[in-house]
Amino acid sequence: MQVKRVKVFKIRNETEVVEDDFVAEEEPLEVRTCYDDCQTFAIIMRTPGNDKELVLGFLYSEGVIDTIDDVSSVSIKSDNVVEVRLNKPLKVKVRDMIVNSSCGVCGRAFLYTLNILKCNTRVSRDVIFSLPEKLKENQEVFKITGGLHAAALFTTSGELNYLYEDVGRHNAVDKLVGRLLLERKIPASNYIMQVSGRLGYEIVSKGIKAGIPIICGISAPTSLAVQIAEEAGVTLIGFLRGNSFNVYTHKERVI
Amino acid sequence: MQVKRVKVFKIRNETEVVEDDFVAEEEPLEVRTCYDDCQTFAIIMRTPGNDKELVLGFLYSEGVIDTIDDVSSVSIKSDNVVEVRLNKPLKVKVRDMIVNSSCGVCGRAFLYTLNILKCNTRVSRDVIFSLPEKLKENQEVFKITGGLHAAALFTTSGELNYLYEDVGRHNAVDKLVGRLLLERKIPASNYIMQVSGRLGYEIVSKGIKAGIPIICGISAPTSLAVQIAEEAGVTLIGFLRGNSFNVYTHKERVI
Repeated sequence: MQVKRVKVFKIRNETEVVEDDFVAEEEPLEVRTCYDDCQTFAIIMRTPGNDKELVLGFLYSEGVIDTIDDVSSVSIKSDNVVEVRLNKPLKVKVRDMIVNSSCGVCGRAFLYTLNILKCNTRVSRDVIFSLPEKLKENQEVFKITGGLHAAALFTTSGELNYLYEDVGRHNAVDKLVGRLLLERKIPASNYIMQVSGRLGYEIVSKGIKAGIPIICGISAPTSLAVQIAEEAGVTLIGFLRGNSFNVYTHKERVI
Repeated sequence: MQVKRVKVFKIRNETEVVEDDFVAEEEPLEVRTCYDDCQTFAIIMRTPGNDKELVLGFLYSEGVIDTIDDVSSVSIKSDNVVEVRLNKPLKVKVRDMIVNSSCGVCGRAFLYTLNILKCNTRVSRDVIFSLPEKLKENQEVFKITGGLHAAALFTTSGELNYLYEDVGRHNAVDKLVGRLLLERKIPASNYIMQVSGRLGYEIVSKGIKAGIPIICGISAPTSLAVQIAEEAGVTLIGFLRGNSFNVYTHKERVI
């Protein structure tokens, strides 16, 4: 279940009614990684569903796995526990980012950018204009709860290929990336990623690592997101609403 | 600086202009904790400013410190490094939540709820209606960038006492909590917390730990947020827009 029924007092001016309503499900998922023995690698607060994709995308973003071949199996042990058996020892124990300059994290993202800089994917502005509406139409849980983030991949002709929703913006992107890993589609150089919210470092760096050349959001980017998109060769588009958007980096892909 | 100037291509229908615009600053902050020796405890992606409050609130939320007396000093070592000297050895090494049932994390939040359940703070619906507008009026960085979360504390008569902005929703709350720690105002049983976005587990559990009895958001809560608010005795209000809101838990505080 991705939604849960709750009783709500709805206050409107002077009036008040009690109604049943739905909220987005949020539950903790324990991610266990196993090589010789198993250990708890992380707890992710997430919307249940597509846990396999979520965990794979998360482990990829965290640098634990580099390809799906690093994984021998993914088992759902219970509702909120997933066990990933690795083909190699765990190299990253905890989130371990290097901060040795004003942007120590940028260098790490840069490792993944060679494919993006080379890729000559192009997209028309009309296709870009069409993305938010298509995303919204397909956000099933959002329609019911008004409270979920979404991340989707579109082709350059504007066709929706993958869409995931989650209470966590980064989880929705991890689910996308996990799916790409499973289908061996990384680097995903022919895709546009569209997210429902803001464009921060975490979202954009996950997109870069998956080799996605065009990343769009409904809302504002952060300074660091702009900086890493510029370095990585990613076209970063913000405030995409109606027939209007801002291009922050690599405008050459918009035709 | 909390904003950064960038060059943007603004696409509107058929037209296109190049303009300077501002995005919210996002930079990694290294949090070092020291007892005998120092270690990197975490890297937080945040909007610079109020780093001291941020780090204290974060360490409190993570269970590293229980009061400001557990800290002997907080030093800003450079733009993006803060060193916290502790009066006791570090007891939590990494995020370490227990997930042994459908809601293993709830028990932890419950530890902090005794004060909230007892507190008889009340607030009128007119005061609640007034909060989003007051929050927006005072969001300085949001006005410029359109891209920042905010968290604020109001008195029950609707007076704004504290407000922080950040690219990370949880960071804005950590800054508030850090300020409360510094002013020795925890449990903050006479305050209403208002946040600019959604109400997920992380946001609500931080509020509970700070002893805040009324938590409001512009947008939707998650199922787990509703569950822990119910258990903790917190009045949880969502979809607060115009003269309209939903009360999910402990409605007795709304008069």
